[in-house]
Amino acid sequence: MQEGFVVWFTGLSASGKTTLAKSVEAELLARGLPYIQRLDGDVVRQDLTRDLGFSKEDRDENIHRVTFVAELLSKNGVATTCSFISPYRKARANARARCHNFIEVYTYCPLETLIERDPKGLYAKALAGEITGFTGIDDPYEEPENPDIIVHTDKETVAESTEVILRHLEQQGLIPPARRSAKAAQASRREAV
Amino acid sequence: MQEGFVVWFTGLSASGKTTLAKSVEAELLARGLPYIQRLDGDVVRQDLTRDLGFSKEDRDENIHRVTFVAELLSKNGVATTCSFISPYRKARANARARCHNFIEVYTYCPLETLIERDPKGLYAKALAGEITGFTGIDDPYEEPENPDIIVHTDKETVAESTEVILRHLEQQGLIPPARRSAKAAQASRREAV
Repeated sequence: MQEGFVVWFTGLSASGKTTLAKSVEAELLARGLPYIQRLDGDVVRQDLTRDLGFSKEDRDENIHRVTFVAELLSKNGVATTCSFISPYRKARANARARCHNFIEVYTYCPLETLIERDPKGLYAKALAGEITGFTGIDDPYEEPENPDIIVHTDKETVAESTEVILRHLEQQGLIPPARRSAKAAQASRREAV
Repeated sequence: MQEGFVVWFTGLSASGKTTLAKSVEAELLARGLPYIQRLDGDVVRQDLTRDLGFSKEDRDENIHRVTFVAELLSKNGVATTCSFISPYRKARANARARCHNFIEVYTYCPLETLIERDPKGLYAKALAGEITGFTGIDDPYEEPENPDIIVHTDKETVAESTEVILRHLEQQGLIPPARRSAKAAQASRREAV
């Protein structure tokens, strides 16, 4: 029987949260986990949080509702990933307290690099004052003080960061170890001989 | 591997929705289903829907959010029960369209009987005009046109109604058949001899 858990990605816009969540999800699928659910803006915006904006109050309410859903999923055996900027420590601490097997992943990337990347042109707009309340520019991001994992998305490849997260899940006994390829198994048998 | 489903109880206040949901839940537990989640006002009011009132718009939004959660749970293998007055056909049809293995149970009880029962004194208050927007009194309830199951809670015991629902779940292949008691099995072996 699968044990539920939540891999919670927090970090600035464009730091790689959803990219990593999708990569982890693909690996969990490959390892045969039957029930995997991704929660991110794309998944919840139309249904769960369509009435919310970007004030502190609305951001907290957003995370509060997502936490409720992640709590139910993780307690019912589902491998859950959550990708939300989730800038406030208190809201993340509440998610940790409520979810089953909560793993906080801080997707770190220096702000200068994010401003260079800027895939959606949002940092440029925020810096020009065209949009306001943008986390990291004119809205606070409270860095995790003690995350379970930090990935440095400016230095690591997606595959490398994914591997760090999977190894952590393995060590926690939440997912089975990766099956070695037939070749690797053969090589190791030969060594044993 | 467990197949997820949603047993959706709809009906007037005090018609027995949550009582039945809890009874079904206990039976599912007894049959060894690993993941069971009840959704009702008590479960969602503090987290998911705390901003909502009883206007048509708010009732629709309430059911919309609950539907989203029930969809995720049922698609991820969880045996889910939902107990909500859910007075509007369109909102229930949407829940049916989105959830995995959706079973609509209409908990029917004549209004006169509910007014007699009135465990929380709400019907008396609604009839006296002390509270407004009360379903069945001054707010509409759109009866299910084609529910999967109708239970008549004025005539059946909780055990009888529960049995009807469990039999339906068995017939749909969503739960294993009840294990017969050792005594019954022995008796049937004796007959066979």
